Amino acid sequence: MEEIKVFCPATIANVSCGFDVLGLALDSVGDQMTVRKTSENGIRITKITGQDLPLATEKNVAGVAGTALLEKSDYQGGFEIEIDKRIKPGSGIGSSAASSAGAVWAMNELLNRPFSDLELVEFAMQGEKMASDVAHADNVAPAIFGGFTLVRSYEPLDIVSIPTPSELYATVIHPQIEIKTSDSRKILKTTISMQQGIQQWGNLGGLIAGLFKNDYDLIGRSLHDHIVEPIRSILIPAFDEIKTNALKSGALGSGISGSGPSIFALSRGEKIARHVADSMTDTYQKIGVDFDIHISKINNQGVKKIN
Amino acid sequence: MEEIKVFCPATIANVSCGFDVLGLALDSVGDQMTVRKTSENGIRITKITGQDLPLATEKNVAGVAGTALLEKSDYQGGFEIEIDKRIKPGSGIGSSAASSAGAVWAMNELLNRPFSDLELVEFAMQGEKMASDVAHADNVAPAIFGGFTLVRSYEPLDIVSIPTPSELYATVIHPQIEIKTSDSRKILKTTISMQQGIQQWGNLGGLIAGLFKNDYDLIGRSLHDHIVEPIRSILIPAFDEIKTNALKSGALGSGISGSGPSIFALSRGEKIARHVADSMTDTYQKIGVDFDIHISKINNQGVKKIN
Repeated sequence: MEEIKVFCPATIANVSCGFDVLGLALDSVGDQMTVRKTSENGIRITKITGQDLPLATEKNVAGVAGTALLEKSDYQGGFEIEIDKRIKPGSGIGSSAASSAGAVWAMNELLNRPFSDLELVEFAMQGEKMASDVAHADNVAPAIFGGFTLVRSYEPLDIVSIPTPSELYATVIHPQIEIKTSDSRKILKTTISMQQGIQQWGNLGGLIAGLFKNDYDLIGRSLHDHIVEPIRSILIPAFDEIKTNALKSGALGSGISGSGPSIFALSRGEKIARHVADSMTDTYQKIGVDFDIHISKINNQGVKKIN
Repeated sequence: MEEIKVFCPATIANVSCGFDVLGLALDSVGDQMTVRKTSENGIRITKITGQDLPLATEKNVAGVAGTALLEKSDYQGGFEIEIDKRIKPGSGIGSSAASSAGAVWAMNELLNRPFSDLELVEFAMQGEKMASDVAHADNVAPAIFGGFTLVRSYEPLDIVSIPTPSELYATVIHPQIEIKTSDSRKILKTTISMQQGIQQWGNLGGLIAGLFKNDYDLIGRSLHDHIVEPIRSILIPAFDEIKTNALKSGALGSGISGSGPSIFALSRGEKIARHVADSMTDTYQKIGVDFDIHISKINNQGVKKIN
């Protein structure tokens, strides 16, 4: 295979109680990317549509992640990348992770899979490091593994795949304001109370158990974040109203997607996910906030080949 | 049924990464208790063997927990309780929880189960409150539900049963010093760093996932506690040596049982659990610390009827 076209999923990191450790991949929201082998060594980004992003390899997350892979590879050639960027940067649904993960996943396919998924996550994390100063894995891990993933530990990197109940849908609304991940990290406190910690790991344990048990009620009861959400939600227009209305419309839970400003809700079944989308849409239309909205099944595959 | 004899299991709370939320029940360590109906209202503790504990209903955890049940019951009679106390108070393996849980479970059986397991936990927590000032559930929940349990939340009380891999064994060594739960809580800090929190909920998520997946390696990789263990272990003789030797002997993980001073290790299979017991025994014999040692399968039933 000399060329591959891939779908690079958007992802929701944190998922309320899983700050910095949990993430999930979306199915109907993502970039497309074409990667082809070249005889010349190194990565060249030849075309970006959809967004105005740098073509320079060392300034583009796909270039940085791809370079990390190339450096560990025996392959003597290089790659050309074309990106059709459909996820808006700064939206909080893993825009940079989609490009980083998509690039390294596609290259690995073209090289006949010399690297494990875990290694691909490590390469993609280099793209994340360039994008937000922190080599976090909570978006790139679900983008590569699919479904829900837990970053159990960073040193050593330990990624755990968590099964996804089949009726789980995500609704994501993106108010058209930009918050940089690095800025939204700065406002967080560096300490928390023991009591907050206990609540959080109780909920995270409950969420993981709920996903394994297909227990939608337990998933809903566990989707709380008493630590980060109260702080970050201040930056997001009408967060409380969006969340309250989502829950009233039947969502299992709702919270900030990644570092925001997107707000996600998880629901049982597409019908409820659409109700939730309607309620979110109403809220922003009433107060005149521009937005994009997405409804998606959870994507169990992660990055995938398309035609 | 007018009379029932029950086994009341010892329990390991916290289990390293699950401070205040996780617990497990043991199979071969526990009290025995005989409970019989009486026409007279109220609880009477008629006999305690094995330990010197108060017979007065309001000063005995079984009496307090049983009274909490009676107050919610339509039953007009009362109960007599005989306790054969085999778990030493203050050992850190749920001595008070075994009495509280055993009493209310036995009474519920004699009344033809008017109460759910969750309600029994709530009654038993009243016994815990008397014993340690805090109505914690991380010992009484596994004592009643069996296996591993997660206390997802206290308000409202939400207990989640977690499946137990069949080859999992616990080794527990109890150095003969007493630490009161209330004292060992006092030395804890009331704040933790965000980074410690993230590590902890990553590990707790990993442990829950490992238990569901029967992934013993993942269980082992997750059994870390960077928050409470470094502080509480100072109170326990040769903690680091016991733990290090347990891991060298093949244990998946090792930590403080509840608030100590008992130290537990989890192993895959009885053979390794016995090696671990040998290494723990050697360590305390060398330095002249008196101890009890237990090797047990995980008990998936919790309190149970015996003859």
